[in-house]
Amino acid sequence: MSLSQVAAELDARDPLAGKRAEFDLEPQLSYLDGNSLGAPPRSVAARLDEVVRKQWAGRLIRSWDEGWWQAPERVGDRIAPLVGAAPGQVVVSDSTSVNVFKALVAAVRLNPGRPEILVDSTTFPSDGYVADSAARLTGHEIRRVPPAEMAAVVSERTAAALVNHVDYRSGLLHDLPALTESLHAAGALAVWDLCHSVGAVPMRLDAAGVDLAVGCTYKFLNGGPGAPAFLYVAEKWQERFDQPLSGWAGHADPFGMTEAYAGGAGISRARTGTPEILSMLALDAALDVWEDVTVEQVRAKALALGDFFLRCLDERVPGAEVLTPRDHRRGNQLSIRRPDAKRVMAAMTESGIIGDFRPPDVLRFGLAALYVRYVDVLRAAAFLSGWPG
Amino acid sequence: MSLSQVAAELDARDPLAGKRAEFDLEPQLSYLDGNSLGAPPRSVAARLDEVVRKQWAGRLIRSWDEGWWQAPERVGDRIAPLVGAAPGQVVVSDSTSVNVFKALVAAVRLNPGRPEILVDSTTFPSDGYVADSAARLTGHEIRRVPPAEMAAVVSERTAAALVNHVDYRSGLLHDLPALTESLHAAGALAVWDLCHSVGAVPMRLDAAGVDLAVGCTYKFLNGGPGAPAFLYVAEKWQERFDQPLSGWAGHADPFGMTEAYAGGAGISRARTGTPEILSMLALDAALDVWEDVTVEQVRAKALALGDFFLRCLDERVPGAEVLTPRDHRRGNQLSIRRPDAKRVMAAMTESGIIGDFRPPDVLRFGLAALYVRYVDVLRAAAFLSGWPG
Repeated sequence: MSLSQVAAELDARDPLAGKRAEFDLEPQLSYLDGNSLGAPPRSVAARLDEVVRKQWAGRLIRSWDEGWWQAPERVGDRIAPLVGAAPGQVVVSDSTSVNVFKALVAAVRLNPGRPEILVDSTTFPSDGYVADSAARLTGHEIRRVPPAEMAAVVSERTAAALVNHVDYRSGLLHDLPALTESLHAAGALAVWDLCHSVGAVPMRLDAAGVDLAVGCTYKFLNGGPGAPAFLYVAEKWQERFDQPLSGWAGHADPFGMTEAYAGGAGISRARTGTPEILSMLALDAALDVWEDVTVEQVRAKALALGDFFLRCLDERVPGAEVLTPRDHRRGNQLSIRRPDAKRVMAAMTESGIIGDFRPPDVLRFGLAALYVRYVDVLRAAAFLSGWPG
Repeated sequence: MSLSQVAAELDARDPLAGKRAEFDLEPQLSYLDGNSLGAPPRSVAARLDEVVRKQWAGRLIRSWDEGWWQAPERVGDRIAPLVGAAPGQVVVSDSTSVNVFKALVAAVRLNPGRPEILVDSTTFPSDGYVADSAARLTGHEIRRVPPAEMAAVVSERTAAALVNHVDYRSGLLHDLPALTESLHAAGALAVWDLCHSVGAVPMRLDAAGVDLAVGCTYKFLNGGPGAPAFLYVAEKWQERFDQPLSGWAGHADPFGMTEAYAGGAGISRARTGTPEILSMLALDAALDVWEDVTVEQVRAKALALGDFFLRCLDERVPGAEVLTPRDHRRGNQLSIRRPDAKRVMAAMTESGIIGDFRPPDVLRFGLAALYVRYVDVLRAAAFLSGWPG
């Protein structure tokens, strides 16, 4: 059988094949950049129209009492099962960078007397920038360490470690439970960045004993460009969660207008300012696509997509330098290094195969299994084999 | 002439009367809560639909290069003339509380060796909470002072003062140029919160030499619930603006993915995380209502609305305890204290006259002159005169 026949057969047998119709994607488009910006679920446009015309225009200020004010916790509770968290531990708020700041400052305050913060040296840069700033303000030292070395480096000096679940560049998936356990063994808190795994890789934050976690919602959760991020605070830490962006929305009695800050109960104290309702409810609508599908199903298909992509590359682009593990220690993307990566991706995009480029020389292909087809990864491999041909 | 006749005549002669049609408001509704949540401009729903269907669905990731990434500065430049700022000094980002944190930490770093931050003791509480947090992290002392006393209290110990342009509770308008000058005379930086004045009260931040300012866009700018806030950094400080939420969006080369943070040129370094595009472009559409009207025109009508409201109160509710100055040292609301305020506002809202209530006993009526009519304030006064009758 040719690769085209295999792809067609895999797509025909794909139990998730019907999910693509829930997204507003042109049929001929191969969209392999869900690791950067998820595709739009069809439910979003209608929901935004309703929010603007019925809620904002129709009810005006009253909508704050009719669901808006509690949306950060409510939508957070919709994300919770996707990260293996019991309700009441996830809140949607701000950007990932802002939440990293909250989480790190809170973490070192939970673990006083330890002068050091470990930061994943392969992190998406923003986390590192924000960690530097948090450390400067709290008087901690930052030590940059690859996740693979963290278990060996963590010590009684370490207050907390900030680690990415998936390496944004290579797609390597780190062992969240094992590293969390190693960090805890040294008395350090584990702060995970789930941006590249949430909605793609099954995880059980509660079971793993993760302390704090952040993640974005515009990649595999399809919440829309710049959709608000989320923050997970394990229940055991909530009462002592002492965060630096202590705005009114996290206050125990926000409308009491008291002079002194008093953090709210539970996860609410992780909130800061007035929640960004339009973006938040677009995300809420986008999460509807998860109602009849599990992360495990999505993961199974994404691994099969990746395996098939590797097979296509092996046959059609035998010299390709794949940065991502060939086994299943990978997240939800395949990364390929080639010196002409930037030009290649521009040309692919022109031809209707959209992935992305990360400097200096990495092509990334996201395998968002809710809408990516086997034919899409075959097309990507075929393009690479023929280019610039 | 009866008050009804006067109101009808004032509305008939109102040069801004036609602006109300640009908002999605029921004709019979008296909406006097624009000081809390502005009414929806009709342009917003269509714009969001376009952003979702044409930009997100149609162009996907490419939209980031086609206007999204620069939206915070571009939309900021649309707000700039409303606050009397030359271009390149306003960026739209995050919430007001988050921006207060950025501004205050940056301010004390610009003015080292001074141990104290003055905070408006009448401030909307969130600013105070965040100021406390900033001071705790930077090792400063907070001193709470009413704006009227700040000129006397500011000293060589003061690094910066955080002041509200308009008192959210009473509606009192503070003298921004004079207080800024007094703060500067003592060598302190002036950080203004413009939430209750932007889009309602003319101001000239550049001319007044204001150092930093924050404001929200969901009140008199009608950007929508939880619309992103803005941050003004005077050009003279931008090169040394050293802010604590140093995320990738403010980096000089955000897509270079370098390990070390380097703040971007100009106002861009005030950015933090990925911008919230749906909310941002809703705000962008909402700002269209300013294309043929000035803040001065809006102010003139709002003062006339307030004067007429006071006249109606004097005639119909002679005992009303008005907290807002009767002269023009007021912002864009009238506040009335009465012990039954909470119940009164609930009943008014039921009858189609919407203002708001602030604990413990204050009724607030916003005079958003783009859509509030003279008949609306008369209806409010008439309701108060008749209640509970």
